[in-house]
Amino acid sequence: MASYPEIPDIVIGRLPVYLRALNQLLAQGKTITSSHELGQRLGISSAQIRKDLSHFGEFGKQGTGYQISHLQAQLKQILKVDREWPMIIVGAGDLGRALAHYRGFVSRGFRVVAVFDNDPARLSSVNGDVETYEMKQLAEVVKARGIRIAMLAVPAEAAQEVCDQLVAAGVRAILNYAPITLTVPPNVHVQYIDPVMHLQRMTYYLE
Amino acid sequence: MASYPEIPDIVIGRLPVYLRALNQLLAQGKTITSSHELGQRLGISSAQIRKDLSHFGEFGKQGTGYQISHLQAQLKQILKVDREWPMIIVGAGDLGRALAHYRGFVSRGFRVVAVFDNDPARLSSVNGDVETYEMKQLAEVVKARGIRIAMLAVPAEAAQEVCDQLVAAGVRAILNYAPITLTVPPNVHVQYIDPVMHLQRMTYYLE
Repeated sequence: MASYPEIPDIVIGRLPVYLRALNQLLAQGKTITSSHELGQRLGISSAQIRKDLSHFGEFGKQGTGYQISHLQAQLKQILKVDREWPMIIVGAGDLGRALAHYRGFVSRGFRVVAVFDNDPARLSSVNGDVETYEMKQLAEVVKARGIRIAMLAVPAEAAQEVCDQLVAAGVRAILNYAPITLTVPPNVHVQYIDPVMHLQRMTYYLE
Repeated sequence: MASYPEIPDIVIGRLPVYLRALNQLLAQGKTITSSHELGQRLGISSAQIRKDLSHFGEFGKQGTGYQISHLQAQLKQILKVDREWPMIIVGAGDLGRALAHYRGFVSRGFRVVAVFDNDPARLSSVNGDVETYEMKQLAEVVKARGIRIAMLAVPAEAAQEVCDQLVAAGVRAILNYAPITLTVPPNVHVQYIDPVMHLQRMTYYLE
């Protein structure tokens, strides 16, 4: 697969949105869609969608739209989720446990293989096929499994320290649920999930 | 407070990001910042920040930067989080419980007042000051408390039905954790939290 060094991150950020919409259209039994239909579903202009996709090649013919399964396969390949990424969770509190039990990862390219916590009692509450380890085993497991992706579900006070341990062990992508900005080297990617940001975006519109 | 009907939603979406950064700068003891400093922290151009803020008036003088506490107060007022919004959670599984116990809402404009579930056993696992109710009491509680905001933490199969109940009861802003697109009337706002979208945005960059 070619890489596309010149493509703005904001464009990359929209590709998972398109992919999820295509998954839903396929689930509804559709086979063909258009930038117009996608745009209407997503609240994005059809011109934006065509422009975003044009960075990666030709996916549809003028006037005939996109074959959904083809575009889906291409987006999976571009986003590198045409494979299954093993992933770990640090923190086995309510949130870490919810993530460990979440069934929506596997069909979209990810599998939680292990959960870490420094409290064995919390680890015992994790069910299912997920292995559980104390924090002192973090580096060993990450290296042995070749883990590149972690979800961070620890309190804000602990987040930077755990982040540093993850990076030292070889993790290169962190989905951070702690409400602090992490400091990482340039070769490590961080995404943030903060429910308050979404809530504040909606209160603007409330009377 | 004036309303700003012409401002693109993408601009509104960046205001909570600026507000969170200002909170962090204040917590670090700073009193003055600049669009340059904010931009460096956030990976957004300083020109973009100045343009976004200019929609709402003059917040800084050329060359002297922004007084953080003033800009913070203004953004809180614009986003209407200069008050405390009562909020409910539907779904008392792992995720709903994690949200009910999360301590980061109150300082940023929100308070969880009640959790709903159709299983009394799950409700009994919710701790703290949060009231718990069975689903049949949803409309009554929402109306009595004047609730406008809900977080939806139910399985995908149940999400649209619960959403319809919320809207009928008077909820106008929904933060949806179920991985489906909800159908709502035009006067209802929905935001989505989907960890897979964030993960897929990072795998693009992994080797």
